[in-house]
Amino acid sequence: MSNPAIICVAITGSVPTKADNPAVPVTIEEQVESTHAAFEAGAAIAHCHVRDDEGKPTSDPERFARLKEGIETHCPGMIVQLSTGGRSGAGRARGGMLPLAPDMASLSVGSNNFPTRVYDNPPDLVEWLAAEMQAHGVKPEIEAFDLSHIFQAKLMKDRGELDGTPYVQFVMGVKNAMPADRRVFDFYIETVKRLFGEDAPWCAAGIGRHQAELNDWAAQAGGHLRT
Amino acid sequence: MSNPAIICVAITGSVPTKADNPAVPVTIEEQVESTHAAFEAGAAIAHCHVRDDEGKPTSDPERFARLKEGIETHCPGMIVQLSTGGRSGAGRARGGMLPLAPDMASLSVGSNNFPTRVYDNPPDLVEWLAAEMQAHGVKPEIEAFDLSHIFQAKLMKDRGELDGTPYVQFVMGVKNAMPADRRVFDFYIETVKRLFGEDAPWCAAGIGRHQAELNDWAAQAGGHLRT
Ligand SMILES: [Zn+2]
Ligand SMILES: [Zn+2]
Ligand SMILES: [Zn+2]
Ligand SMILES: [Zn+2]
Repeated sequence: MSNPAIICVAITGSVPTKADNPAVPVTIEEQVESTHAAFEAGAAIAHCHVRDDEGKPTSDPERFARLKEGIETHCPGMIVQLSTGGRSGAGRARGGMLPLAPDMASLSVGSNNFPTRVYDNPPDLVEWLAAEMQAHGVKPEIEAFDLSHIFQAKLMKDRGELDGTPYVQFVMGVKNAMPADRRVFDFYIETVKRLFGEDAPWCAAGIGRHQAELNDWAAQAGGHLRT
Repeated sequence: MSNPAIICVAITGSVPTKADNPAVPVTIEEQVESTHAAFEAGAAIAHCHVRDDEGKPTSDPERFARLKEGIETHCPGMIVQLSTGGRSGAGRARGGMLPLAPDMASLSVGSNNFPTRVYDNPPDLVEWLAAEMQAHGVKPEIEAFDLSHIFQAKLMKDRGELDGTPYVQFVMGVKNAMPADRRVFDFYIETVKRLFGEDAPWCAAGIGRHQAELNDWAAQAGGHLRT
């Protein structure tokens, strides 16, 4: 609890569009400026998605390269975390940006339901993404959409597929996945400490209307924050 | 704890074959005889899968009808529970036997990983299966392969998609899903009681080498058993 919280800023998720909110930064230039503002306000990690020319989520490595370069130039020392999430691509295309060797990348290690579909992360794809991250020295952020995903990180660590202490993010408030539930949140923390040690880092992200609530819980409990 | 445990017997899973173990009952006649023996030994619920002529899992309603009729004839009063699990079929074919109006049917309400693939239960299919069960007066057994699946049962109950108190089965020990972990098992029970009341029923199934362990835990904690 004595360490200052690390703030992770998710500049542009994969879901909102300009039509939903004209203030959402979508071009690389807008994203870099928005990240810069968050960096000056204290954010230490930039969690990054990119969009194509129509504003749709993409895994295009060339766009990720421009965003990474822009953040590194404008925000020296900021940790760049690129998303390998399934809303932006399918199969191994999701990891096509990993040779850019960002500091971190998100890694989903299990499957779960999303509001209208299955969020598919087949075991062989998860293992391939983890191997690519090891090969390029990228630290994964384990996206825990459910409790078993924390245990999966333990299994992968024991098999040598994850280096160091896993960094787990609890994702709560996605419809048809895990709701924002305080008892579960506390059990997630207990589980991380039991599997990875008292000092294991963790962070939490509340989706949509749950964002402020999860940030409160994480700040109280000594975790890192996603804003 | 004062109620006697209900024993559920899974006569033939969807995975083992005669090649693995020649004693596995695979024909309808073998399954009925095996269920009869378990019934006489005290089993109250028969959890049923069926196989095609090659011994492969199927959702064929005609085979389910023959198995149901055989159990009803040989084991009067036994509760017949038919599987709508995804190893036996795809899409709505998984629920093709529900018009037989068995006492119960299994219902997976979320998605998760299995040893080599994604166990796909898309939200629209889950809702359709639940609606078919309501239409035919079939009591679902909610298959909880992960913690969020218990919360999903609560959401479905609140939306009127499940009648009465949900009957949840904890499934543990499937590789790449939830391992057999005693703290999680206790948290599952706590969650069922919190969401559905102190007297809400639950049962537990340990897969493969975890079967005996889960039965011990369930017997100690006042749950029903799957053998
Ligand atoms: Zn700048
Ligand atoms: Zn993201
Ligand atoms: Zn008989
Ligand atoms: Zn089954």
